[in-house]
Amino acid sequence: MGRVPQSSIIVVGNEILRGFTVDTNSNWLAGRLFHVGYPVRLMTTIGDVDADIVGAIRDHMAHPELTRIFVCGGLGPTPDDRTYVALARALNQRLVYRRDVGAQMQNLMFILNLAARRGTAELNAGNRKMAMLPESANLIRNGAGMAPGLAFDLDQGRYLFALPGVPHELRSIYEDIEIRYLTGGQADVVRELHYRLAPESMFHDVMQALEQEYPDVSLGSYPQTETRQLILRASGPNAERVDAVITAIRDRVKQYDPVA
Amino acid sequence: MGRVPQSSIIVVGNEILRGFTVDTNSNWLAGRLFHVGYPVRLMTTIGDVDADIVGAIRDHMAHPELTRIFVCGGLGPTPDDRTYVALARALNQRLVYRRDVGAQMQNLMFILNLAARRGTAELNAGNRKMAMLPESANLIRNGAGMAPGLAFDLDQGRYLFALPGVPHELRSIYEDIEIRYLTGGQADVVRELHYRLAPESMFHDVMQALEQEYPDVSLGSYPQTETRQLILRASGPNAERVDAVITAIRDRVKQYDPVA
Repeated sequence: MGRVPQSSIIVVGNEILRGFTVDTNSNWLAGRLFHVGYPVRLMTTIGDVDADIVGAIRDHMAHPELTRIFVCGGLGPTPDDRTYVALARALNQRLVYRRDVGAQMQNLMFILNLAARRGTAELNAGNRKMAMLPESANLIRNGAGMAPGLAFDLDQGRYLFALPGVPHELRSIYEDIEIRYLTGGQADVVRELHYRLAPESMFHDVMQALEQEYPDVSLGSYPQTETRQLILRASGPNAERVDAVITAIRDRVKQYDPVA
Repeated sequence: MGRVPQSSIIVVGNEILRGFTVDTNSNWLAGRLFHVGYPVRLMTTIGDVDADIVGAIRDHMAHPELTRIFVCGGLGPTPDDRTYVALARALNQRLVYRRDVGAQMQNLMFILNLAARRGTAELNAGNRKMAMLPESANLIRNGAGMAPGLAFDLDQGRYLFALPGVPHELRSIYEDIEIRYLTGGQADVVRELHYRLAPESMFHDVMQALEQEYPDVSLGSYPQTETRQLILRASGPNAERVDAVITAIRDRVKQYDPVA
């Protein structure tokens, strides 16, 4: 591990914990973070309970190896959206009304024709709640909805982000975060072997030996029920070493031929 | 909250943290647990790192309100499967070779015709690893694969379970766990209202008032991007109170009519 930047994800929402909504955000975000060299070390999912959200944020902040922490969900206008309040508590900050966020929402109400449908361009209590932000929050533009993304500078090169749970809004905001806050990472090289009908246990010995010989390469085996394939996946910072592991598996497991 | 039994899920696997595999288990399991009255309070996802798995198990055990803890993944025959070892460390137990598990695997090798394909019915090192279990483990039959499910009695009515990450094996084992270890829960009553094109912020005031009037009812709002619907969902132990909340929303938000 050592000096590889590592990230983490906190997912907020009763709908996830109760199985009503499939959490597609964390898989998408984890894939992107892996590919920019900020692999996810830890994910936590909690409900719309203030103490649980505060606890998760503090817990992730207490792990110094987590240099990019993403809190996803709970930024909306209704009372079950509690992330701003929880962030303020976790960071020991006040919530302050941000006029720039309020003004941006009013613009959007005209652009989206909400003002006409409502008969007023006044922000209602739900809108105003979305502009009450922890005082050190830096805004990240949301190209797809009203809730801005937030970035907090935690010092020592660490950052905490808040993103909405609505998938296309999360993705829009993430694009900006990637450009501004996720430079300098180096993605691991990934190589796979696919076997058909090969029992996983037959790879135990060679994988154990390779773990010793190549401690810098991460090696996993993944049986795929539907295709009846077994995927062996090696990854690590050095392409030659990863390739050497893949070649060694091919050479040492003679009774099966990979299909890919 | 109070005396409602609560559960938690720990998902183990680099493939999830890196975005290679979508974690379908936790959504499925969370839905089932909610419907039998053991709602999930906390989910943690970690990789194939011994210290992280041990840490997550100990963390969940340290929350006394979590009375059913499910560890999913990492039970397989290859060295990247580390859950048995982590469970033994988290529980301060020895790993012991279980002859009954070994014998069951040998039976399966004949049934699945693996013995003939391999030319031997001997268990290899990978198979034997799957029979080295923490000493207090109770077995739960796996109707779909080799790795047995495990149940640990943590005292005071609390249980810790280990299930394989392969989805159809996890589901097979869970069915037995539900019958044997998840009785006595009472599922919350759930009611929904669906609105079309209604801005979420318009529901802030009524939701805030209803949170005060009905603290026993959990109320959430969920914008659905694809259908452009807004779902308001109320749940709680008492059907009359949940219905009263739903009726109050209909009555107090006059400018929109629910479509369902």
